[in-house]
Amino acid sequence: MEVTKLEEISKLLRYYILTSTTEAGSGHPTSSLSAVELMATLFFGGYLKYNLEDPTFLNNDRIIFSKGHASPLYYSLWTAAKAIDSNELMNLRKLNSDLEGHPTSNFKFTDAATGSLGQGLSAGVGLALNSKYLDKSNYKTYVLLGDGELSEGSIWEAANVASHYKLNNLIAILDCNRLEQASETILGWDLKTYKARFESFGWYVIEVENGHDVQQIITAFEQIKNSTDKPICIVAKTVKGKGIKNIEDKVEWHGKALKREELENAMHDLGKINFSIDCNVLKPDDFKQTEPQIGNFNWSEYKLGEFVATRKAYGNALNVLAEKYPELIVMDGGTQNSTHSEVFQKKHPERFFDMYIAEQNMISAALGLTRVNKIPFVSTFAAFFSRAFDQIRMSQYSNSNIKFVGSHAGVSIGEDGSSQMGLEDIAMFRSVQDCAVLYPSDAVSMERAVYLAAEHKGNVYIRSTRMDTPVIYSNENAFKIGGSKIVKESVYDSITVVGAGVTLHEALKAYETLKEKNIFIRVVDLFSVKPIDYATLSKCIRETKAILIVEDHYAEGGIAEAIRSELANVKTKIFSLCVSKMPHSGKPSELLDYEEISSKFIVEKVKEIINSF
Amino acid sequence: MEVTKLEEISKLLRYYILTSTTEAGSGHPTSSLSAVELMATLFFGGYLKYNLEDPTFLNNDRIIFSKGHASPLYYSLWTAAKAIDSNELMNLRKLNSDLEGHPTSNFKFTDAATGSLGQGLSAGVGLALNSKYLDKSNYKTYVLLGDGELSEGSIWEAANVASHYKLNNLIAILDCNRLEQASETILGWDLKTYKARFESFGWYVIEVENGHDVQQIITAFEQIKNSTDKPICIVAKTVKGKGIKNIEDKVEWHGKALKREELENAMHDLGKINFSIDCNVLKPDDFKQTEPQIGNFNWSEYKLGEFVATRKAYGNALNVLAEKYPELIVMDGGTQNSTHSEVFQKKHPERFFDMYIAEQNMISAALGLTRVNKIPFVSTFAAFFSRAFDQIRMSQYSNSNIKFVGSHAGVSIGEDGSSQMGLEDIAMFRSVQDCAVLYPSDAVSMERAVYLAAEHKGNVYIRSTRMDTPVIYSNENAFKIGGSKIVKESVYDSITVVGAGVTLHEALKAYETLKEKNIFIRVVDLFSVKPIDYATLSKCIRETKAILIVEDHYAEGGIAEAIRSELANVKTKIFSLCVSKMPHSGKPSELLDYEEISSKFIVEKVKEIINSF
Repeated sequence: MEVTKLEEISKLLRYYILTSTTEAGSGHPTSSLSAVELMATLFFGGYLKYNLEDPTFLNNDRIIFSKGHASPLYYSLWTAAKAIDSNELMNLRKLNSDLEGHPTSNFKFTDAATGSLGQGLSAGVGLALNSKYLDKSNYKTYVLLGDGELSEGSIWEAANVASHYKLNNLIAILDCNRLEQASETILGWDLKTYKARFESFGWYVIEVENGHDVQQIITAFEQIKNSTDKPICIVAKTVKGKGIKNIEDKVEWHGKALKREELENAMHDLGKINFSIDCNVLKPDDFKQTEPQIGNFNWSEYKLGEFVATRKAYGNALNVLAEKYPELIVMDGGTQNSTHSEVFQKKHPERFFDMYIAEQNMISAALGLTRVNKIPFVSTFAAFFSRAFDQIRMSQYSNSNIKFVGSHAGVSIGEDGSSQMGLEDIAMFRSVQDCAVLYPSDAVSMERAVYLAAEHKGNVYIRSTRMDTPVIYSNENAFKIGGSKIVKESVYDSITVVGAGVTLHEALKAYETLKEKNIFIRVVDLFSVKPIDYATLSKCIRETKAILIVEDHYAEGGIAEAIRSELANVKTKIFSLCVSKMPHSGKPSELLDYEEISSKFIVEKVKEIINSF
Repeated sequence: MEVTKLEEISKLLRYYILTSTTEAGSGHPTSSLSAVELMATLFFGGYLKYNLEDPTFLNNDRIIFSKGHASPLYYSLWTAAKAIDSNELMNLRKLNSDLEGHPTSNFKFTDAATGSLGQGLSAGVGLALNSKYLDKSNYKTYVLLGDGELSEGSIWEAANVASHYKLNNLIAILDCNRLEQASETILGWDLKTYKARFESFGWYVIEVENGHDVQQIITAFEQIKNSTDKPICIVAKTVKGKGIKNIEDKVEWHGKALKREELENAMHDLGKINFSIDCNVLKPDDFKQTEPQIGNFNWSEYKLGEFVATRKAYGNALNVLAEKYPELIVMDGGTQNSTHSEVFQKKHPERFFDMYIAEQNMISAALGLTRVNKIPFVSTFAAFFSRAFDQIRMSQYSNSNIKFVGSHAGVSIGEDGSSQMGLEDIAMFRSVQDCAVLYPSDAVSMERAVYLAAEHKGNVYIRSTRMDTPVIYSNENAFKIGGSKIVKESVYDSITVVGAGVTLHEALKAYETLKEKNIFIRVVDLFSVKPIDYATLSKCIRETKAILIVEDHYAEGGIAEAIRSELANVKTKIFSLCVSKMPHSGKPSELLDYEEISSKFIVEKVKEIINSF
């Protein structure tokens, strides 16, 4: 590919960027213009290998715009490649177009929805892990980074883990244009320091002094192959708004489209555009995935009454299901001996990735894996998923399929205290659209939850419990997403107590105490917090006089709120017991009492409700 | 201080660590033992300056255990210093003791609750910013870091911002003991790489080859003063479990207390303890804060009907209140020209910190500021607070006083698309205990919200809106946390429509449309989402036939769920309209229609409800 041809293509890309954003009346032309030559060379200089007719082809190279606001460039590249029509490009940012303000998976070439900065490199880590260790294919993963987003810690989480796993198939391209939204970046054009940072994090760094000089960029891309076991970062000095005099290198021109009259002047700067120039993307190498061997499995044989923590049952379940789901991959945030994912790590080390204490990177890397048909189960303490809420939130816009498993839920973890207690995890995962939330109460239902999560297409959160709890189900019991279980039932039931996890066992203790006083309660194991089993709860509403919900979680966004929303406007009264005092260190049983969610307080509350009728 | 004395003190600290954890039956003795000499030298070697009788004294040095699980060492240090009684130490991890499993602000010397890793350095950034730029005092801030937590990106956010602000009064002490919970860390004892990383991030690094050699540690502390404008990191090679043969450098000994018989053996390893050894902490230098000048202010004079975005009113309000609250400090995550905190930045640059695109560090740094009586207002897009949910969650255990202001809430932001839309922010902030949530609908009520937040002791979240909305209140209107406003009211009201922010204005449009058809609705501006104004809503329940809640937020954990919980078991029916389709780029008005939360859909829903009676 001649340099002059890439320069002509760059001109065409600038034309597309400017016209589409002016047509939209908003967007980020200047942040797009700085990376034009870098991306033109990648796409059309003989580096990117991609089957434009089949974005799902497993050996396509991957390209992620971590600086998602450069979407006008992103869409322009696919337009130049004739993968989308140039008329469609003019629908940028419109309600009926897939070309959204920041890329989402509505646009078929998107591997990771971006727009919240600093996440793209981690998605790239997941894709690169897959190519190197799982599929053993030979695609490369390219990530366009902005310099502003290098302030985000998640970038350095990714950098650290990428070099640990020797991801020499991961190429970050840093578009160092000096300016972020409101000011100069901390480092400005200090390329030497960026280089030193990436090198200290174990990367092979290639400097490009002028990121608009196509020849320099080609030289840089040619050096990629020199890295035998390090991820690669091309650090390129660029100019924001490059090519259009009036807006070049000006902080006030962030996220602003040119007005129509300004566009006309800009066209003069650009000069003549060659609309018929050939923009060829190389085809990817052939690749045929080894046909996975799908094996059988037998449910574990837990004994009724046996004490098994559901977190332990989680680890066991992964091993039970490993042969049935060859695409099942497990990641842990360095807590595998607490979440019990380590039993899978020991048996299937080739399908386990220790992601160390870096939850943000873990989640986006898992997202990357879902793009290549893997089923990642990611585990850490329920509380620590809050560290990656932004990544979890963003995953839903990437049509994600992650299985989150949070251990150490609630005050019932005991002495470690509030920092380790997941008390808002249900609120968080419920707020993610289309994310199922399961909360199994014993080992058998945990194993079913893991199975259901593997079968389900979409995000699923499973909450596990630290303490041992008795097995209450046999393998004959059926479970489903959106299902619950009536555990105690009689025609004498006065009110229904809904529990889940540890509170179900408290409810069962309360049942026994109350029975001795000839008070019968119906006990429901909610199991599926989202979606809620409306049918079963409706039946309880018809057949008992009130509903009492007990949860080891804060009130806000928790189980009671979920049920109240689902049962809105029923006449039956709904009561709740939940964690409502500032939590503390202490023995698990003491803390259940302290927060008034133990059997003792269930008994009291039931009596109080009955007396109020 | 003689080396041998510090060695003897170290022995005493080991004794306290081991006996208190064995007594508790849990905890992290090995993670404590590795840092004994480092902390003994800091506390009792003539470095830390602290008035033990007054932890609130503003010129005390600050000490944060970012590796919060080393709390047995932390409490042992204060015990040795006789700031707490050694009998009390034996109540470690008990429900009635302030010595929790991980430090919280229940313990009076705690500056930042830790236990979720990687957050302490950022709290230190806030404290160091205060000393250097605000109080202009001369305390130093020491942060004990674990090596495992250096995988957390938040550490590198802090490192980046700390060197930018030349915080040579911030000293990180890296206890590099090679082992994290479940495995060796990525870098093990590779001190050179840690050094290179911190140096590339602009720090002055001092290596300690043997972190148990008191003389080497003293030499390191003596070098701190050599740093004229860089934050300092002491990188020390240590051994986990140091001093007790059977548990030294063993990964399986993480987070495990010795059994009583094991403790006996350990005591042999320790040898004779000198319980009467003098453990002196230096007194801090005198410091008298300049008495702040408290000025007056006048409310802005917005005109009824004038169109002003509430985000703009936020920026104005900061300036209006700046003299009245000299302790009011503003931080922004690099979005100050969008959140409009930049108007404060321009007028009060000495009270504004650009925290760049690093939300996690910003929140914990703000927490640090609250410990020295500052009132930090922190702003970014509502969506991007999700990046720091773990830090926000943890702040409540530090008795925090942060004012969070999230702009660009809801789908009404328009073309930028889903990644930029705050659609779960209310759910997130509601789940933080004791965090008030305010959602003003016009410029006047925004100014009041900022005032109320400044007055209120505790965390407050304020949600602002991107688009211009008309001013509907005059300065005669009173607002309060926990208050709402009835905006339209008559004796003919059939049902009550509750809106907030942009949906209030949709409700007001619906009011006009319905009035033409002789249907009267009561319109309530919720204003305070947490706590909810129960009295006003109760009145509406008595006086109208149904409640319809309209919100630009997902259903889960949102306004409708908040109201349903608050109005649990009332007989009046409650309906809701909220964001329920996967959001998209588009025009704000199109998106309000698309999500069926616009006036058009309010009108339809009201009619449907009325027809159902």
